[in-house]
Amino acid sequence: MASKPETEHPKQAFGWAARDTSGVLSPFKFSRRETGEKDVAFKVLFCGICHSDLHMAKNEWGSTTYPVVPGHEVAGEVTEVGSKVKNIKVGDRVGVGCMVGSCHSCQSCGEDLENYCSKMIQTYSSKNVDGTITYGGYSDTMVVDEHFIVRIPDALSLDAAAPLLCAGITVYSPMKHFGFDKPGLHIGVVGLGGLGHMAVKFAKAFGVKVTVVSTSPNKKKEAIERLGADSFVVSREQDQMKAVMGTFDGIIDTVSALHPLMPLLGLLKNNGKLVMVGAPEKPLEFPVFSLIVGRKTIGGSMIGGMKETQEMIDFAAKHGVKPDIEVVPVDYVNTAMERLVKADVKYRFVIDIGNTMKASS
Amino acid sequence: MASKPETEHPKQAFGWAARDTSGVLSPFKFSRRETGEKDVAFKVLFCGICHSDLHMAKNEWGSTTYPVVPGHEVAGEVTEVGSKVKNIKVGDRVGVGCMVGSCHSCQSCGEDLENYCSKMIQTYSSKNVDGTITYGGYSDTMVVDEHFIVRIPDALSLDAAAPLLCAGITVYSPMKHFGFDKPGLHIGVVGLGGLGHMAVKFAKAFGVKVTVVSTSPNKKKEAIERLGADSFVVSREQDQMKAVMGTFDGIIDTVSALHPLMPLLGLLKNNGKLVMVGAPEKPLEFPVFSLIVGRKTIGGSMIGGMKETQEMIDFAAKHGVKPDIEVVPVDYVNTAMERLVKADVKYRFVIDIGNTMKASS
Repeated sequence: MASKPETEHPKQAFGWAARDTSGVLSPFKFSRRETGEKDVAFKVLFCGICHSDLHMAKNEWGSTTYPVVPGHEVAGEVTEVGSKVKNIKVGDRVGVGCMVGSCHSCQSCGEDLENYCSKMIQTYSSKNVDGTITYGGYSDTMVVDEHFIVRIPDALSLDAAAPLLCAGITVYSPMKHFGFDKPGLHIGVVGLGGLGHMAVKFAKAFGVKVTVVSTSPNKKKEAIERLGADSFVVSREQDQMKAVMGTFDGIIDTVSALHPLMPLLGLLKNNGKLVMVGAPEKPLEFPVFSLIVGRKTIGGSMIGGMKETQEMIDFAAKHGVKPDIEVVPVDYVNTAMERLVKADVKYRFVIDIGNTMKASS
Repeated sequence: MASKPETEHPKQAFGWAARDTSGVLSPFKFSRRETGEKDVAFKVLFCGICHSDLHMAKNEWGSTTYPVVPGHEVAGEVTEVGSKVKNIKVGDRVGVGCMVGSCHSCQSCGEDLENYCSKMIQTYSSKNVDGTITYGGYSDTMVVDEHFIVRIPDALSLDAAAPLLCAGITVYSPMKHFGFDKPGLHIGVVGLGGLGHMAVKFAKAFGVKVTVVSTSPNKKKEAIERLGADSFVVSREQDQMKAVMGTFDGIIDTVSALHPLMPLLGLLKNNGKLVMVGAPEKPLEFPVFSLIVGRKTIGGSMIGGMKETQEMIDFAAKHGVKPDIEVVPVDYVNTAMERLVKADVKYRFVIDIGNTMKASS
């Protein structure tokens, strides 16, 4: 029989969990392991609300183990480190993103791409090496292998740092890998939400010209004036789309709703690359001619490796790249989820765990 | 009123043309331009039958101008050169592939990628700069700008050289561009026809391990023993597909029938690339997860530039890469087309124009 979350580990912990496909979150007592020799224990202070948290809370991807404590944009302060921890000490400001373990022996791990390791352990609702289920950052404390801990530079506030650990690296990594970071290039960002607004900010920090492609004309003013985009195109306006045809070197497509790819492929120059970071549930289709004529590619990318995540957060600190956030108390989390469904947030909710999460017995 | 094909140019020419969507070819009198100062005129000796010729003869892509003289795998011997022709002289062995003109001023042309120039002029059924329609290699003579002439090395027979000018470059170019030419890599070739069998031969010449993926179990013996493939997988046999999952660095997909991409994406390693060179008429679909998990890409490629086509044919001559062909007389062309529909050819028909095409008045 599976042991109980509250007693399976020695250290008491407290968080908010969803118990069923309603996705409604409520207070939840569970436990964390002792700080192992390579582990870092930290007090969670902030945790971003990623759209994945919503999918997982409702088991929309079919992979959820209930109860699920979501949260993979976690920032806090170190309270204890194991004897073999090398680079982290008590009091350090740290973060944890989407993963807390990998095999360390496959080709992907060897290339600092733990995110593509087939044995990668996700931060929540994933089976840990000891067989217990992982619980995420909607909780008071975490204990994580040092390898999966990111150091947060002083120049970044912890609330702003949190969303970088998923939304930030999810767009930063493909922009680097697919070569969208060269000054002078022209990049399209499709969808202006948590991921999209970070893609705009990183693109500007890279010195790249960026055009936002969105279904919502009312986002134009903000995209340009607040986020710094160079231009804005309404994807449903054929004239506007036509005017930028064949002008993009690359596109970061953050949309996870079903959407046609052909109009986007038409925006690319020859050799242009359309990179998907949102994940529509149903298959997308494309006419093969639209790839062949112009040697275009469609690629995908999923978060980033730990080395690159540290590089990303150091880059963000140096260049003042940070998400636009709305900080909320933990008892607002269900309302926040509802607003997230309606895209009613600019652009990321971050839960103030440190000040608002209190264990009630 | 449009001028007549027979009199619009000063030099008489003779070929075989399709007149309507039946695609049936029959003798056809037309004319060729005088040899301009940058032109090369040559006697056609051999012309390959590409699957595109069939689509175009029947107007299956909707872009055909009748009468159409197909043929874009053309090899022959030079009879006249213009005063400004630099590298070709009378008597040279030359070839022409899929294009006979481009703008020479766009970025693609500047990068030796005339194949992606938006003003590229195709070898047949395309509008030339003077407004007349181009006629292809199912004809006795051609007059072509030197820039689009390929020199055929002595080590290659002209009949074997012909199919390299389309089928050869169509697979060679993406294998070079997408980095499939590094010894030690493992490449999949999907579909074993005109394109696929050339992909296997080039892969082996590059020192790459190659697995053929096909719907036809009866092609196995031949793929391995005759073409030199390292292994063979029947795409409808799940056990065979499962055994090679995650083992390919890249795939050249030559299939132009509708087919599912997800099983092919599953064969790729992380960072693997699926490159489409066949062009199914209807859109193909893929689940976005299958790209995101493993940072995979789907790309397309269309023939190659002139510089690369010369490089390809020199490489083929040096390494003994040549197509398996069935040489046929021109009056067999309609039968050959019927057999092509049934994939009943190993692996390319080549018309012996020099010996069998006689102008009948």
